[in-house]
Amino acid sequence: MQTIDLNCDLGEGFGNYQSPEDAILMDYITSANIACGFHAGDPAVMQNTVSMAIQKGIAVGAHPGLPDLQGFGRRELKISPAEAYQITLYQIGALHGFVKAAKGKLNHVKPHGALYNMAAKDYALAEAIVQAVKDFDPQLILYALSGSEMIKAANAAGLYSASEVFADRSYQDDGTLTPRSQKNALLEDAQSALDQVLMMAKHQQVISVQQNIVTMKAETVCLHGDGAHAVAFAKSISLGLKNNGITIETFRR
Amino acid sequence: MQTIDLNCDLGEGFGNYQSPEDAILMDYITSANIACGFHAGDPAVMQNTVSMAIQKGIAVGAHPGLPDLQGFGRRELKISPAEAYQITLYQIGALHGFVKAAKGKLNHVKPHGALYNMAAKDYALAEAIVQAVKDFDPQLILYALSGSEMIKAANAAGLYSASEVFADRSYQDDGTLTPRSQKNALLEDAQSALDQVLMMAKHQQVISVQQNIVTMKAETVCLHGDGAHAVAFAKSISLGLKNNGITIETFRR
Amino acid sequence: MQTIDLNCDLGEGFGNYQSPEDAILMDYITSANIACGFHAGDPAVMQNTVSMAIQKGIAVGAHPGLPDLQGFGRRELKISPAEAYQITLYQIGALHGFVKAAKGKLNHVKPHGALYNMAAKDYALAEAIVQAVKDFDPQLILYALSGSEMIKAANAAGLYSASEVFADRSYQDDGTLTPRSQKNALLEDAQSALDQVLMMAKHQQVISVQQNIVTMKAETVCLHGDGAHAVAFAKSISLGLKNNGITIETFRR
Amino acid sequence: MQTIDLNCDLGEGFGNYQSPEDAILMDYITSANIACGFHAGDPAVMQNTVSMAIQKGIAVGAHPGLPDLQGFGRRELKISPAEAYQITLYQIGALHGFVKAAKGKLNHVKPHGALYNMAAKDYALAEAIVQAVKDFDPQLILYALSGSEMIKAANAAGLYSASEVFADRSYQDDGTLTPRSQKNALLEDAQSALDQVLMMAKHQQVISVQQNIVTMKAETVCLHGDGAHAVAFAKSISLGLKNNGITIETFRR
Repeated sequence: MQTIDLNCDLGEGFGNYQSPEDAILMDYITSANIACGFHAGDPAVMQNTVSMAIQKGIAVGAHPGLPDLQGFGRRELKISPAEAYQITLYQIGALHGFVKAAKGKLNHVKPHGALYNMAAKDYALAEAIVQAVKDFDPQLILYALSGSEMIKAANAAGLYSASEVFADRSYQDDGTLTPRSQKNALLEDAQSALDQVLMMAKHQQVISVQQNIVTMKAETVCLHGDGAHAVAFAKSISLGLKNNGITIETFRR
Repeated sequence: MQTIDLNCDLGEGFGNYQSPEDAILMDYITSANIACGFHAGDPAVMQNTVSMAIQKGIAVGAHPGLPDLQGFGRRELKISPAEAYQITLYQIGALHGFVKAAKGKLNHVKPHGALYNMAAKDYALAEAIVQAVKDFDPQLILYALSGSEMIKAANAAGLYSASEVFADRSYQDDGTLTPRSQKNALLEDAQSALDQVLMMAKHQQVISVQQNIVTMKAETVCLHGDGAHAVAFAKSISLGLKNNGITIETFRR
Repeated sequence: MQTIDLNCDLGEGFGNYQSPEDAILMDYITSANIACGFHAGDPAVMQNTVSMAIQKGIAVGAHPGLPDLQGFGRRELKISPAEAYQITLYQIGALHGFVKAAKGKLNHVKPHGALYNMAAKDYALAEAIVQAVKDFDPQLILYALSGSEMIKAANAAGLYSASEVFADRSYQDDGTLTPRSQKNALLEDAQSALDQVLMMAKHQQVISVQQNIVTMKAETVCLHGDGAHAVAFAKSISLGLKNNGITIETFRR
Repeated sequence: MQTIDLNCDLGEGFGNYQSPEDAILMDYITSANIACGFHAGDPAVMQNTVSMAIQKGIAVGAHPGLPDLQGFGRRELKISPAEAYQITLYQIGALHGFVKAAKGKLNHVKPHGALYNMAAKDYALAEAIVQAVKDFDPQLILYALSGSEMIKAANAAGLYSASEVFADRSYQDDGTLTPRSQKNALLEDAQSALDQVLMMAKHQQVISVQQNIVTMKAETVCLHGDGAHAVAFAKSISLGLKNNGITIETFRR
């Protein structure tokens, strides 16, 4: 029997700006990556989101980002490995505060946005993030881009990792994501996203924008939590996976 | 044999603004209250300060403040008890991240500035802070103003507390601190501060600005970490206590 | 012929959090109060909102708030008059940068949220805000709560002011707004809001929650830009005013 | 008679963190570049610094930086030209608010730190910054690295510029500054800095770290306002220039 984990970035509201679909999305996923206050999220949003995730029985992860609320953590900031270590550790700790108080368990860490993308390509940053995760709790799992430097660094450090693929992002021949700055970066219709997820989950493969078959490791699939189609995509992918005999369950190390 | 704990607010630099005296001050105190990024402190400062405190063998505490870097957490912000709970828990968690990674132990929590002063007088805020500390770890000790609502809330919740007095702040007849807005709020010379600390440590009393004897509970004495005289005061008080047969050691619950 | 100004707080998105209804709302109002980055708004949002307002030919105002993005500027922060002066001047200047670059003209200043409410009752704060507006440009108009200390301070300083009333906020017998913490603070249906606005515009009166007639000065009516009903209310009030022979036009000093 | 402008980055304190040497430094310079709240500075610091500069009769400039207080604006943040335009305009406007209120005149704009360095090499960013300055006020002067893309963009746009050289930074053969990450980036003794400034002011030349003579345009010399030696360097360079017959005066377009 095949299984797959569905994860989603949640708790990405801030102050007056809420993300009301979080509660609905949680019904279709098995791992929540919860923003920690640097690119999005604030103590109130974090408490609420952690509490909801624990109630729904889905895995709770920290989703640390760059300190750039205006840029939503999507703009590259040249930080040193030491700084990457420090901001990752700070944010894991902060989220863990809410998890511990709610008598839950922190399951994983998934870096956000530019921090994720930078560390996917830069081994020194990847190592620093892995070290922060491991120093905090060596039982945590790092969710990171399949084939990335982060996965390599986790392996080298003996840290558990889950190779992540994306439901609605298109891929290049070398297995990297098409940058958001390019117009075909996103799969716009639910059927294409479902087809891509099914191929990933069943065959550990994806068809690149160049129309070639690319092999990858698909242990957890990222569904986007924002955007107009978020809930519709989540429902469609969840249903499609089940209809195709694939069990949706939290990734286990 | 009489003992007293000396605590100091440390790690209150931020980014380019460092507090070079922290390392020296740590030689004279037994408890460090380390800023958590809201009123001062950043992930780099926190890591360094936690690391130094652990090396020096002094007790490490979280020093959460209001989210007001410009005001250094000294301006009252009307927050609800729920918000007080959330910002306290967030900051305890964040600091704990560094303590855990450095294989240390979080000993206590002492709210900062306006959060401290507001919760000293407002039982609902005090309760929320106590709950955050207890929910995170019921073994933590709350350092709070002697006789304050925070001490009462800690007692009511069964949370350990240490009654705090101040070396260089003057007192009113009712045992409250003279507000900083008044000119005699601070004791400016080291001898006066030492005399006040000795009287507090030996007799659990202080002489108010109205020249009356006020009774208080002195379990930990706060030395200020900033200001021109910080190091000189710390040396003088530390030496004066020893010369008067009082042992300086971390408060134990 | 009776006239009234309709104003709305706009540009209150931030970073990833947009307020897509701003463009629609601008079709129904005559004055835009544009957030300046402290409680909401960022340089991108400000540029876009200023540009839209100028294109639509509506009056552009600065909408300075307390430095509290998480609290959306709605939590009281105890600031001194000097600090009120400084944050007001900073934000007027920042918004004016975009207005000047777009070859527009800054028309007015309306403080936001808790700053507005605090200064409505505190003459020293009101004076400081008035001074900041006047020091920047004595031709600017202060939009402030009818009957408030801000109106008095503006009068005393010889600064133009527009007395503001609220379409969807209920009033107390003393002419103050029912605090948001009370459940009947907001008028929930469009007809009630329209009725209140018509009475204000025609008769300079409002019916309090205690069912008494309260006299006020209604030179500009605030429509709220956020919330589910914002656009529907704006349309309904705009149409209702026209149908009742009241011309909607920018307040002129 | 030869003249040179001496400029210094000032007002780079924040909240509780003050820069007490600003007042002294102002006695030795002719242009103040005042931080605008993004990398340093806050409304109170800005008001005080602008007021001091006007009193001392030195030219007041805006010193806009990246929105990165923790990194003091020294970490590269990948922003688009549109974002560079927006943050520059916002900060110029904000500083201008204080200048206008104090009945002073804004003279120039000098980008800070990583924004300065990025725009020195990236023409699209340089163009955006130049456009923001020009859109705000075409009479303003852009202070920018001698030979940089910013000088080129200013020339292309018909904006006045002052070519800037550094007293205590070493130079490479290609006329660029030695990066701060390299150990010989800074001239540590006052005599070397003075010698470099004299050669720049008299001969428009500098000796590179590779010991070659490099030609440059020296219209304004940057003295650093922070660091242990700031005041001593400023005094020494000011005196040395006078003793060598060079008049220190504000750059005039």
